[in-house]
Amino acid sequence: MRTGEVEAYLREHIPLSADMQIDVLEAGPEGVKIEVPLAPNVNHRSTAFGGSVAALAILTGWTLVHLRLRAEGLVTHTVIQSSAVHYDAPIHGTFRAESEPIEARSWDRFTRGITKHGKGRVHVTVHVVAEGIAAASFTGAYVGIAGLKSAGDA
Amino acid sequence: MRTGEVEAYLREHIPLSADMQIDVLEAGPEGVKIEVPLAPNVNHRSTAFGGSVAALAILTGWTLVHLRLRAEGLVTHTVIQSSAVHYDAPIHGTFRAESEPIEARSWDRFTRGITKHGKGRVHVTVHVVAEGIAAASFTGAYVGIAGLKSAGDA
Repeated sequence: MRTGEVEAYLREHIPLSADMQIDVLEAGPEGVKIEVPLAPNVNHRSTAFGGSVAALAILTGWTLVHLRLRAEGLVTHTVIQSSAVHYDAPIHGTFRAESEPIEARSWDRFTRGITKHGKGRVHVTVHVVAEGIAAASFTGAYVGIAGLKSAGDA
Repeated sequence: MRTGEVEAYLREHIPLSADMQIDVLEAGPEGVKIEVPLAPNVNHRSTAFGGSVAALAILTGWTLVHLRLRAEGLVTHTVIQSSAVHYDAPIHGTFRAESEPIEARSWDRFTRGITKHGKGRVHVTVHVVAEGIAAASFTGAYVGIAGLKSAGDA
């Protein structure tokens, strides 16, 4: 799946991502990078709105899990169970969320849960970077649920 | 400050809140309730996008802290330091974020920090409700920084 396809899919099915003007720079089972401009994501202080930062990170983590499951031929749907963001520095321009690789052991436990028990959970870390500086860090717990294939999931 | 004024302020200064089509139902120093329709906040499964849920809760908590500081005549700017969301149930329609009252002791410590040390931190809990059911819970840590009055803050 090319970055353009992933971006079109996200923009169509998650309209807030279109409002945020996402630009999918990288999208594969090993890593996802999504960038947004400041203007649609700005707050009253001309810095990035914390809600945009959280939403971008959630989207990035979800895309990584979704693409890696697909790449392994696992039919699931993936939902977020919990998320945590720490904001380290104000963001004054374009910003980007970059997923951290998921460790093999965590991923194996996740997919084993799905194939054996119909359900698994995995934690994904995403870093939000602006002008080369780490501006926020995110951890999300995503749950994959097997066998609920639908047009939107596959 | 009336709910309409608060809504107009948020929509103007945080454009993502306009994209989310926020409807400010209650906005005072004791509590804030903000509702959004599903359509602009939907995901690929026709339920609420986790990023919208997080953004709505962050906005609700911020508005509460901001209005209460204003009501007490404290000139600060308020930024989010960290946020955590737990998603308990999928949301299939309009959803609403409702702030939990901030305990007097926490608030006093917060404002004492601002007046004595120029800075304070307070935790705010927000519940996200859909069709009468608790769908998500949020805790955010907000930092108030004294004396940086600007047009956008007051």
